[in-house]
Amino acid sequence: MIKIIERKIKDVEALENAILVEGLPGIGHVGRIAAEHIVREFKGEKFLELYCYDFPPQVLVNENGTVEFMNNEFYIVREPVQMIVVLGNTQALSPIGQYYLAEKLVEVGIKYGAKMTYTLGGFGVGKITDVPKVYAAATSEELANKLKEYGVEFRKDGGGIVGAAGLMLTFSKLNGIEGVCLMGETPGYLVDPKSARAVLEKFSKIVGFEIDMKELEERAKDMEKFLEKIRKFEEEVMMQQQPKPPSDEDLRYIG
Amino acid sequence: MIKIIERKIKDVEALENAILVEGLPGIGHVGRIAAEHIVREFKGEKFLELYCYDFPPQVLVNENGTVEFMNNEFYIVREPVQMIVVLGNTQALSPIGQYYLAEKLVEVGIKYGAKMTYTLGGFGVGKITDVPKVYAAATSEELANKLKEYGVEFRKDGGGIVGAAGLMLTFSKLNGIEGVCLMGETPGYLVDPKSARAVLEKFSKIVGFEIDMKELEERAKDMEKFLEKIRKFEEEVMMQQQPKPPSDEDLRYIG
Amino acid sequence: MIKIIERKIKDVEALENAILVEGLPGIGHVGRIAAEHIVREFKGEKFLELYCYDFPPQVLVNENGTVEFMNNEFYIVREPVQMIVVLGNTQALSPIGQYYLAEKLVEVGIKYGAKMTYTLGGFGVGKITDVPKVYAAATSEELANKLKEYGVEFRKDGGGIVGAAGLMLTFSKLNGIEGVCLMGETPGYLVDPKSARAVLEKFSKIVGFEIDMKELEERAKDMEKFLEKIRKFEEEVMMQQQPKPPSDEDLRYIG
Amino acid sequence: MIKIIERKIKDVEALENAILVEGLPGIGHVGRIAAEHIVREFKGEKFLELYCYDFPPQVLVNENGTVEFMNNEFYIVREPVQMIVVLGNTQALSPIGQYYLAEKLVEVGIKYGAKMTYTLGGFGVGKITDVPKVYAAATSEELANKLKEYGVEFRKDGGGIVGAAGLMLTFSKLNGIEGVCLMGETPGYLVDPKSARAVLEKFSKIVGFEIDMKELEERAKDMEKFLEKIRKFEEEVMMQQQPKPPSDEDLRYIG
Repeated sequence: MIKIIERKIKDVEALENAILVEGLPGIGHVGRIAAEHIVREFKGEKFLELYCYDFPPQVLVNENGTVEFMNNEFYIVREPVQMIVVLGNTQALSPIGQYYLAEKLVEVGIKYGAKMTYTLGGFGVGKITDVPKVYAAATSEELANKLKEYGVEFRKDGGGIVGAAGLMLTFSKLNGIEGVCLMGETPGYLVDPKSARAVLEKFSKIVGFEIDMKELEERAKDMEKFLEKIRKFEEEVMMQQQPKPPSDEDLRYIG
Repeated sequence: MIKIIERKIKDVEALENAILVEGLPGIGHVGRIAAEHIVREFKGEKFLELYCYDFPPQVLVNENGTVEFMNNEFYIVREPVQMIVVLGNTQALSPIGQYYLAEKLVEVGIKYGAKMTYTLGGFGVGKITDVPKVYAAATSEELANKLKEYGVEFRKDGGGIVGAAGLMLTFSKLNGIEGVCLMGETPGYLVDPKSARAVLEKFSKIVGFEIDMKELEERAKDMEKFLEKIRKFEEEVMMQQQPKPPSDEDLRYIG
Repeated sequence: MIKIIERKIKDVEALENAILVEGLPGIGHVGRIAAEHIVREFKGEKFLELYCYDFPPQVLVNENGTVEFMNNEFYIVREPVQMIVVLGNTQALSPIGQYYLAEKLVEVGIKYGAKMTYTLGGFGVGKITDVPKVYAAATSEELANKLKEYGVEFRKDGGGIVGAAGLMLTFSKLNGIEGVCLMGETPGYLVDPKSARAVLEKFSKIVGFEIDMKELEERAKDMEKFLEKIRKFEEEVMMQQQPKPPSDEDLRYIG
Repeated sequence: MIKIIERKIKDVEALENAILVEGLPGIGHVGRIAAEHIVREFKGEKFLELYCYDFPPQVLVNENGTVEFMNNEFYIVREPVQMIVVLGNTQALSPIGQYYLAEKLVEVGIKYGAKMTYTLGGFGVGKITDVPKVYAAATSEELANKLKEYGVEFRKDGGGIVGAAGLMLTFSKLNGIEGVCLMGETPGYLVDPKSARAVLEKFSKIVGFEIDMKELEERAKDMEKFLEKIRKFEEEVMMQQQPKPPSDEDLRYIG
């Protein structure tokens, strides 16, 4: 069991017929940019934070001297459609942690009224494309066929969907609701607002709402700056890792 | 504790005197091909799925836009002999996960009437052999001697049997039933229907049933195509792994 | 869940209004030197030891033939200000272990009267500086602003604070108290008493006590000698790791 | 929590005043050879087996077609002195598993009458020595001083004792009994009966019994042959590790 702490930010009543939307960090940060844009545009209210013991064991430092905790956040959006949106600055680190977290994310979503799950992410193709395609995968064939009418593609690579975007479909099914993953084509090595926009366009058409895209690019730029800093920090961490304890590997069988 | 969710597909009554047969992915996919062929030929019915939190944290994507969950499946075969067959698209990732999963597989088998366990697998020899030998290992000397009469070999390499094929023998013994592993010689780097056929021939002779082999090769070819795609996906995943969080290694002792 | 055993050394009554101070091993051992100096100067009494099942699986050997257990220790300081100080010879090895340990450290601190947390550590800059700056990060903006008046800096690198020094801030917040991390600039590859001294000077000014620094350098030298030995031991461990079992990596998917 | 299954082999009554002796696989297999020799010479009776879910996830294959399970075994020795001896073909793989296992080993020992713990092992020095020294480390200074009278050395390297040989001292102390580790100097890369003999000579003198050494070398040779085979198996396992799932590393943060 991997412990996950719920920190309630605000009392909210469960919605009647919401969709659960996931936009955690991932390839090209496509899902994250798209889901954050939804929350900002529709003035989503944060009502819950999750602290998973398999998140990176750290806090981030802001320029104003405050710390940012590693967590996942739930936002409630009531208009134009009911949504429970999951944002966050991290996914779980280990495979087992990813299972426990995805299970929790879906359980909270359902508790607050979600009747269906949409996970948003990127599909890395290793090169830049002018007009990024949007791929879809669904928990039932009927659902997949319906999605096709909106111009999404089906992947032919036989590959998979890793992390929360994939496992939340598994736990949706296991909890009796259907799920869809929308993946925007993306090079994979860049923060990609263009792909996020493409995903968002399909998503809004499928679900049936309109959304202004003006500020999406700006927000993506802020995120890019932030991620650049994180990247630098990680390099420093790597440089500084001493003194270092004997690794698990080394410790085995010495007696 | 590593959580394993049971998803019941169909109500079935326990058999009276069944054998538990394991054919999960492994070297040369020998056991998997053999066990799938049994299920297809004898029209096994799926009655239960297991979702282990130590499976790869992903879903696979089919060409029709649906997702395939990572799981292990139980099939019931009533004729020509009673069998509970375990298939699946994965084994558990970590050593601990493999213990919990093997324990569960044996417990479910016994619950549904298994009085003995057969695990089917490959034994990698690093080169192609014209007529693959079949090796056996058993949980008692008496049983091993009986197997010898069917022309199986005993391994002299002092090695082991790793994963479910090995641990299900451990948990069979711990739960009061005996177990046998049948291993077909295989190069180790190829999907190997010829080795699977050799294992199946010995297995059917030992247990006492006849099985038509016509479609085995075709099925193996389909599996090979599928695995080729998975392999490509894994390469992509490796390419795309950015942004990357600081690894466990890096995080230690920085403060 | 990762088990942590409490071993009571001495019965002490909870303080009324203490601060929790963390000085576990970390970069440049800055926090460790500073916190040990506090305990020695103010004659802190050890009252509790923690044994975490995610500490390195070993004991250390002293020159007098006794063994030193891997643990974290709590000291109570009553004058000049009330403090609960955490020392120790290790942090937890895995990310999950670090979460469970940090949670426990904060819970024990609060149980014994802590109303606020200070974690002391180093901030690696990769080069030697004449006058090491002291950086601060806090769990609220109000607190951060107050700290600024004492001449601490805010980090602009967008990075993080890894291990107990970071996570104890998370668990302080989750348990309803505020927290501050003070980080002394340090090259990162040396035991750094100068940085420890800089941190201690800021810390004592912020909290409001005076502390004699005469013996700090001497103590740091002892620690350096000790760490040099540990480093040699680790190299030996690496050399001696045989026989070696198949690694997790190797064990996967062989069947 | 890491599950450990107890399999009772024989009902035995607890001893009144026994010592717990550990001889699990480790550097040079010094402890293992010494402890096995004790069990064989004094006709120890196996009464309990432990199956830890953090042991290597495999079974070993014997030449007679039977399988050998990975486990730890408890033997009871009544004469010439009361002993509970721990043998086995493996230690736990992960740091956490090593903690849970060591805790269990000590708990079982105490349950069956152990009032003191001796762990036997090797101390790798990287070169062959004519007359291997025997080093000791104890859980109290008083005990260490007593040992010195028997001609054991104290280590000056500032290093540690890794695995069960170290952690069983920790859990002895935590459970209210004292413990000693005896380490025979050994090159580290060879199975070393000479070092095992040296340890056994000191051990028998300290505890006060006589033991015939005639068959020790022969037994060590058998063990060496066996380990050579294991080594070959591990190399094969490494060769055969395909198909291979995406590693934890690869799976992170792809979405």
